[in-house]
Amino acid sequence: MFKKVLIIGCGLIGSSILRVIKSKKLSKKIFVYEKSKKNISKIKKINSSCVIVKQINNKINDVDFVIICTPMNEYKKIIEKLNKNLKTNCLITDVGSTKKNIIELKNKLLSKKLQWISSHPIAGSEVSGPEYGSKNLFLNKWCVIISEKKQNFKKKNLLKKFWKKIGSKIVLMNSVNHDKIFSITSHLPHLIAYNLIKTAQDSQKIQRKNLIQYSAGGLRDFSRIAASNEIMWRDIFFNNDNIIKSINLFTKNLNSFKKIIQNKDNQKLLSRLTNSKKVRKQIVQLKQDVSKPDFGRE
Amino acid sequence: MFKKVLIIGCGLIGSSILRVIKSKKLSKKIFVYEKSKKNISKIKKINSSCVIVKQINNKINDVDFVIICTPMNEYKKIIEKLNKNLKTNCLITDVGSTKKNIIELKNKLLSKKLQWISSHPIAGSEVSGPEYGSKNLFLNKWCVIISEKKQNFKKKNLLKKFWKKIGSKIVLMNSVNHDKIFSITSHLPHLIAYNLIKTAQDSQKIQRKNLIQYSAGGLRDFSRIAASNEIMWRDIFFNNDNIIKSINLFTKNLNSFKKIIQNKDNQKLLSRLTNSKKVRKQIVQLKQDVSKPDFGRE
Repeated sequence: MFKKVLIIGCGLIGSSILRVIKSKKLSKKIFVYEKSKKNISKIKKINSSCVIVKQINNKINDVDFVIICTPMNEYKKIIEKLNKNLKTNCLITDVGSTKKNIIELKNKLLSKKLQWISSHPIAGSEVSGPEYGSKNLFLNKWCVIISEKKQNFKKKNLLKKFWKKIGSKIVLMNSVNHDKIFSITSHLPHLIAYNLIKTAQDSQKIQRKNLIQYSAGGLRDFSRIAASNEIMWRDIFFNNDNIIKSINLFTKNLNSFKKIIQNKDNQKLLSRLTNSKKVRKQIVQLKQDVSKPDFGRE
Repeated sequence: MFKKVLIIGCGLIGSSILRVIKSKKLSKKIFVYEKSKKNISKIKKINSSCVIVKQINNKINDVDFVIICTPMNEYKKIIEKLNKNLKTNCLITDVGSTKKNIIELKNKLLSKKLQWISSHPIAGSEVSGPEYGSKNLFLNKWCVIISEKKQNFKKKNLLKKFWKKIGSKIVLMNSVNHDKIFSITSHLPHLIAYNLIKTAQDSQKIQRKNLIQYSAGGLRDFSRIAASNEIMWRDIFFNNDNIIKSINLFTKNLNSFKKIIQNKDNQKLLSRLTNSKKVRKQIVQLKQDVSKPDFGRE
């Protein structure tokens, strides 16, 4: 499929892409650019057949596919290097979690001769680092490909083909819609989880009791999401404009929930709880989660 | 251990108790009182050796252990029946999720000749009904036993012995502390999950897009908890006084989270995310959750 692929940033996502490209033989050669020495030694254990490069320079100017998997705050520096060193024919993509900012940055800074079509695989975990990567990470998961005016038709098809080959289901949307949708299905849930854990920590101080040991009653589920990588999530919270709106809608609902409880409004409370209950069924039917009760935990 | 046990209410928890009493042979005879015809036919499939009773009357006046597993709003009626029909020697417990209300109700209505010591096994699931019960539901889970002045020492030891035999770890606390602790580790997380799912449903209407299909990015975890039984959770939200305080603390934290994002305060955001991250490790170390990333989901 490709002759030379360059993976920039090789943590959980980058190393999963590395593994699946290798296992499906999608490229003759794979270059990996990774700054962290710790990660480099982990990557060497995973896949000795990739070439770890210490710089993005003209020694790798003939790569035909670049996938950027670093935190988003590093994109600016990377674009400068790509501008200097890549040839016109190369397809560039990224896996960043917010899109409006990336498209704006790219349109402003990327050399007009280069082709960057943005991706967002909806896959991940609370753990980070190349040791947790898996060739099956993208299997049956959505991958959003960002539509823009004036995209190279052939390159877009190639990108679709790539994500399909590694097991993803493709959906096309523009960056504005992407950020709206994922502010609700991903960014708000993470923020709420972080906030709930902080609230539990504060309560622990106020009550002077070890509450955390009783987390099996519900709190533990939130602690998983609130253990996600702080750099990645800082970048998301700072870059999705919709998050404030989402917080406001959440707060409005929370205030009315509080009133329902204070008024002991039986009918309203029951209809609220019953309505929310329906969503789980949909999610399982849509294969967005396992069907077993309690996630199949033992 | 017992001669005749009566389980009142045989859903997820009641049927799990039924299964484990049977499998560990903790009683010579087991009576089950259950109102729902649907549930009765399910229970018959599970355990043909229990006796299903249609009324709590003097035909079962010689039971030596009663476990109440109905929704809490039924306790009042049940107490009236127990007062009429039970003998002094019987030990009564319940598995209700809030305790101050139960203790008050019991102290007000229960005949002084009877012994009720309240329990709360920290075990459950988003599914309800006897078909989901399991004899292992209580294995290595906390069971809170409520301490009060003037409890019968022997009966309390018997109750401890029962929960230990079925695999629980015992912790003693008074009803006030219980409600404070679980308002944070269980009741607030559930309320927040319900509220997040409602917010996603509202956004879906506002955006006119099917958001739910992209739930794998985080929302799906909350949908599990928000699928919990609405009767049980209505009773909890109406009966734990601490829930309003917990909501207020959560809202305070959410407002300051919002400000941090609006001010793009890098340092404060990173320290918040890093702090919350620590809790997951504690929870796993305390064996309150599985250690595998993503709950071991595939």
